[in-house]
Amino acid sequence: MPAFGGNISFNAQHSPMGAFFSFTCGHFATRGGMAAELGKPANQDLFIGIKEGGRRAHAPLKCLPFFGSAAPGGVDAADFVGEQAGPAEQNAQPRVLAYKREDIQRRYGWATDRWETADFAFSIYTPFGEIADPEAATAAELRRQLLPAVLAELEVDNRSGRDTRTAIFAVNFNEPGWRPIAGGASRGGFGLRRQYGILGEAAGAAAPTLFCRWSPEQGVMEPGAHLLGSCPGLAMEVPPGERRMLRLALGCYLEGIVTTGLEGRYLYTKYFGGLEDVLHTALDFGDPAVACAAIDARLRRSGLSEDQQFLIAHATRGYYGSTQLLEVGGEPFWVVNEGEYCMMNTLDLSVDHMFWELEHNPWVVKNLLGNFVRRYRFMDRLKPGGAAAAESLPGGISFTHDMGVHNNFSPPGESSYELADLPGVCFSHMTAEQLCNWVLMGATYVSLTEDAGWASQNGVILEACLESLQRRGGNSGIPEYDSSRCGTGAEITTYDSLDHSLAQTRNSLYMAVKFWAACLGLAIVFERLGDAGAAERAREQMRRVERTVLAQVGEEGVIPAVFEKQSSGYHSRILPAAEGLLYPWAWGHDLSRHGELVEALRRHASALLKDPAKRNLFPDGGIRLSSTSNNSWQSKIAIFMHVARQVLHLDQDPDIAALFRQADIAHAAWQTDGSGYWACSDQFINGKAIGSRYYPRVITTALWMRGNGRDDAKA
Amino acid sequence: MPAFGGNISFNAQHSPMGAFFSFTCGHFATRGGMAAELGKPANQDLFIGIKEGGRRAHAPLKCLPFFGSAAPGGVDAADFVGEQAGPAEQNAQPRVLAYKREDIQRRYGWATDRWETADFAFSIYTPFGEIADPEAATAAELRRQLLPAVLAELEVDNRSGRDTRTAIFAVNFNEPGWRPIAGGASRGGFGLRRQYGILGEAAGAAAPTLFCRWSPEQGVMEPGAHLLGSCPGLAMEVPPGERRMLRLALGCYLEGIVTTGLEGRYLYTKYFGGLEDVLHTALDFGDPAVACAAIDARLRRSGLSEDQQFLIAHATRGYYGSTQLLEVGGEPFWVVNEGEYCMMNTLDLSVDHMFWELEHNPWVVKNLLGNFVRRYRFMDRLKPGGAAAAESLPGGISFTHDMGVHNNFSPPGESSYELADLPGVCFSHMTAEQLCNWVLMGATYVSLTEDAGWASQNGVILEACLESLQRRGGNSGIPEYDSSRCGTGAEITTYDSLDHSLAQTRNSLYMAVKFWAACLGLAIVFERLGDAGAAERAREQMRRVERTVLAQVGEEGVIPAVFEKQSSGYHSRILPAAEGLLYPWAWGHDLSRHGELVEALRRHASALLKDPAKRNLFPDGGIRLSSTSNNSWQSKIAIFMHVARQVLHLDQDPDIAALFRQADIAHAAWQTDGSGYWACSDQFINGKAIGSRYYPRVITTALWMRGNGRDDAKA
Repeated sequence: MPAFGGNISFNAQHSPMGAFFSFTCGHFATRGGMAAELGKPANQDLFIGIKEGGRRAHAPLKCLPFFGSAAPGGVDAADFVGEQAGPAEQNAQPRVLAYKREDIQRRYGWATDRWETADFAFSIYTPFGEIADPEAATAAELRRQLLPAVLAELEVDNRSGRDTRTAIFAVNFNEPGWRPIAGGASRGGFGLRRQYGILGEAAGAAAPTLFCRWSPEQGVMEPGAHLLGSCPGLAMEVPPGERRMLRLALGCYLEGIVTTGLEGRYLYTKYFGGLEDVLHTALDFGDPAVACAAIDARLRRSGLSEDQQFLIAHATRGYYGSTQLLEVGGEPFWVVNEGEYCMMNTLDLSVDHMFWELEHNPWVVKNLLGNFVRRYRFMDRLKPGGAAAAESLPGGISFTHDMGVHNNFSPPGESSYELADLPGVCFSHMTAEQLCNWVLMGATYVSLTEDAGWASQNGVILEACLESLQRRGGNSGIPEYDSSRCGTGAEITTYDSLDHSLAQTRNSLYMAVKFWAACLGLAIVFERLGDAGAAERAREQMRRVERTVLAQVGEEGVIPAVFEKQSSGYHSRILPAAEGLLYPWAWGHDLSRHGELVEALRRHASALLKDPAKRNLFPDGGIRLSSTSNNSWQSKIAIFMHVARQVLHLDQDPDIAALFRQADIAHAAWQTDGSGYWACSDQFINGKAIGSRYYPRVITTALWMRGNGRDDAKA
Repeated sequence: MPAFGGNISFNAQHSPMGAFFSFTCGHFATRGGMAAELGKPANQDLFIGIKEGGRRAHAPLKCLPFFGSAAPGGVDAADFVGEQAGPAEQNAQPRVLAYKREDIQRRYGWATDRWETADFAFSIYTPFGEIADPEAATAAELRRQLLPAVLAELEVDNRSGRDTRTAIFAVNFNEPGWRPIAGGASRGGFGLRRQYGILGEAAGAAAPTLFCRWSPEQGVMEPGAHLLGSCPGLAMEVPPGERRMLRLALGCYLEGIVTTGLEGRYLYTKYFGGLEDVLHTALDFGDPAVACAAIDARLRRSGLSEDQQFLIAHATRGYYGSTQLLEVGGEPFWVVNEGEYCMMNTLDLSVDHMFWELEHNPWVVKNLLGNFVRRYRFMDRLKPGGAAAAESLPGGISFTHDMGVHNNFSPPGESSYELADLPGVCFSHMTAEQLCNWVLMGATYVSLTEDAGWASQNGVILEACLESLQRRGGNSGIPEYDSSRCGTGAEITTYDSLDHSLAQTRNSLYMAVKFWAACLGLAIVFERLGDAGAAERAREQMRRVERTVLAQVGEEGVIPAVFEKQSSGYHSRILPAAEGLLYPWAWGHDLSRHGELVEALRRHASALLKDPAKRNLFPDGGIRLSSTSNNSWQSKIAIFMHVARQVLHLDQDPDIAALFRQADIAHAAWQTDGSGYWACSDQFINGKAIGSRYYPRVITTALWMRGNGRDDAKA
């Protein structure tokens, strides 16, 4: 794995699967560490490094730069000793040298994040793969897959040294409650209350030495571990002539019911007795490097550029950091939290995550679909745009934007996000889009799993969805009405904080193509179910959408973002017009049967990309989803680029291929330079992450692994 | 209850009994609110106030000044909307008027804290009293006594008004996870995740209206409650001609195992099914004002000065805020946490809290004594001062400084605090003093409860304690040796961060009198048990101590703090010399039998108080425990003053009586001006709280309720 060529100072979420837990580090001079259920990096100073000599030698401690400057507000020894003269602890300040950027190399693979200095190497391993369906899997499988811990290794090669060297891993939690964790003769560790812990072992050597005072360089010098200290750590001495590796399990265990509304506990609590069980099991599983190297190699073999590979590796970590597999009432309940916002199973994210999940654990998509049906579906009425709700028309089924926020499940039929009476802005309802999202998830699930039983069982819901699409679509086939849930307001789309060109639902090009895909998906499912009548109704609406969109094609093939000449969005030029083509591509559907629409979208996208005024590009070459907004989303750019390459074959044009290569470079820099603290983020303004940070949705970049004979990303 | 005459801007910990939970408010322009298991005020902005007109009227919101300025780092609407123009939420900043200090009155009783403005009154009720022995009490008793909630009332008198007015209670949690709490037709509320909640009802009116956006004045204007908001609240409209009161239950519920080492859960979880049960029960219990008024009146009737009454009321709240009644392995387990440090059952605090506990719930003292015996006792050896441990002598039984910290029980026989190899400074061992503390607690428990069964059952421990005291005392009877646990270090006392005059254990005047009291206490217990031999051995050591102390009386009756001429403490003049007289006074022992010692201590204290150089006074008239330290502890001052009044009768001297009156004034100002944010604190340097903040031990002021025919403080 080559050294990372860009800016290495960026955080990564090192996360197991389904624990909503991250060990976050990598950004220089800020804090990170272990946290669960937190939409941002933790607040811990990490001291990972070495000193020359034994642990009590008078030598400086030299660490990776994963700690901030001392912060006010914490308790240290000075708080205990008041005015008294004398104690060595009184004026303790961490005196730790940090390696300089130029003295560090980072290798950032799909499952391995490795830091190297002249003195040691530190690797963090995050293997990922299938989560087996808990209703069919064995406990042994699930203990391995749901283990809420990651492994790291601190290696010191002292084979050519003359003196002992001491490797150190310490954490200043910056909150009270650390405690020792006993590990027998060969293991030692420490934790924070009942929730978080670190257990270490050095192969072939005695247990690492536990220490604690108020700073790591002080703690490692002193005997024992003071329970009133704030900075516990482990030390491993490496005699001259030896090479030793301190393997660390970093884990969490959140017991009991953790949610409200629906009462859920972590499914892993069914397979692990507690934090100690988690940590010992993680070490018992042994060497993580081989499995991770295989995953790393698969990405290396993908044929993708370094920048693309980086984005996929980074996104995968961000995705798993937001995943939360619960058990509610005895049944598994899959949740992906929405990054820094921690909304639960935001449906317009679910539809984007679905491609990844269907490759690795299709049952979670079925789980999501079912949970939306059983608790987060509703029936509404419709109102013509702008009109009062009193004039409403029959509506139909749809689904909420999300299932709650921050572990609080919202009431049945309500999301945490949506509000009435808002004029088509952020927090209004997304009823039409969420209907499409559920339909597209269902159709894609059926298409890729061939689970006809599910389709049959959900026939009545699918029928209701078709009727709801028809009613919302009116004569044009595309959204003509707003849900009565909006009150005096108007519906929006997932592009809620972009300009009106993508936020408006009615007469939206983006929504039109999504409606088209939803109708096509329903038609295919109904055909599979042998319901020719419903299939034909779906196709009929699909054709209406096609006609409506094609009628809007303007000069140079550009299609307005909003089909209302008086709208400010009429002149906006949006690349996500083509997003809806992703789904039939994923189903393996023959898109030549829809040549006219596909061609129109190809010409539209091509015109935007080749626009001499470069209205859909940022100065750095990054892609601007709407020509009239400085706001852009990495996850949606990835989808667009994938459609552009795989469906529209736009990269056969060398100019566009070059433009895409430059865009990938820019997007990688958005993450490292524009989101260094926030790990993987989605929403950028001029290359700076300003929202949707610490986010799962960039996993759409993993679509790039598929197509053109590439690895299919199956883990 | 008269208005508080001092600085009203100070926090109080409004706490139920045994829940380690506080609703903290009162200090202006800082945050407070609800928190459990936190040694400091919570981080919530409280908005308690009123607006003219109905809840959606365009009028400013006017609140008590219990909120800080907007802090960086929180999520608000702007984080969602990015660059988009338009939404009203985007630039939301709380626009709330705060009442000025001169427009607010505060009445601070023993159980009622009442805030009054021209527009409304806000009262917080914290009745206290017995916690019945869980092994003998009924569930109904314990549901009432252990209810982990406090009640508050927001009253608006609009009988002379022409327009509706709206009362508001809102909390910006400044952390994510708020949720609505359903309350049926008459109640409504909100919570933070599963742990904290507020439920309100307005007698004779519909349920208060729940609202939520990102600021209270915005939220109250908007329909519904946005689950993504950060500042939920309740609004109660008061029509003209009416007077309405919004009663609020503010509670917590921490379920499951909350500690490590020993695994404990809150005992209240046995009597309440969850947070909703707690909150509804609190309101079901009805009007809290009458019971609290009776408690308030008892303090008013005490004959104590306003300043003394304030200190007792303030200390009582601080004490209960640190109390934590757990269940460990099916048995109750009483913990008092050490204020901001959160050390558990610090034994040198326990001995001071004991007087309060023996009045209200003696079983908790027995519980503490038993838990120290079963897990936190040890046997040591002794070493002559300064000598190496190899020359050690037989030692004996003693007890650890504490049982752990921050919900982590320390290992058996170890405290969280004590370290070896420290040169007689903070964090060294307190072996001799903790032995005295356990003995004095045991002797006081037996004396006040007449529980001869306990004494008999613990006879072997009491014998071991006597032997341990004898060995530590050597020929002089006072501590001559340090515990081998100190390693190369030396023992210290509870006055750990004062100067050496009180921190040193060997040859210490303070420790000598404490040894004397411990020997006397053992003698009395052994006599009760009919063990004349042991009683005589105890008396023999007691007499040795008397001789040793009396031999040290110097010029003008002053006794050196440390009986070593080469020690810097030899010239220190310490008031806690008399502290040990408190115990025999509490037992009702006839101190005239020890006239010589008592007289020596009386002359010593008198000389220090009447010192023309005022070396034991601060410039403000506050009491300086050691003439050579700027550090002083309110809890220990209270004990000294009590002994000075009740045992030494020093206040019969009009000069000293006046000096004590001035000291009480100064000490009250230390709390309000020197510890406004930290509620009740113990450790002050020149009137500023610099440690031991948010602290339970000041409950020693409640000793003042006893004696001279005063109310005996029994609740």
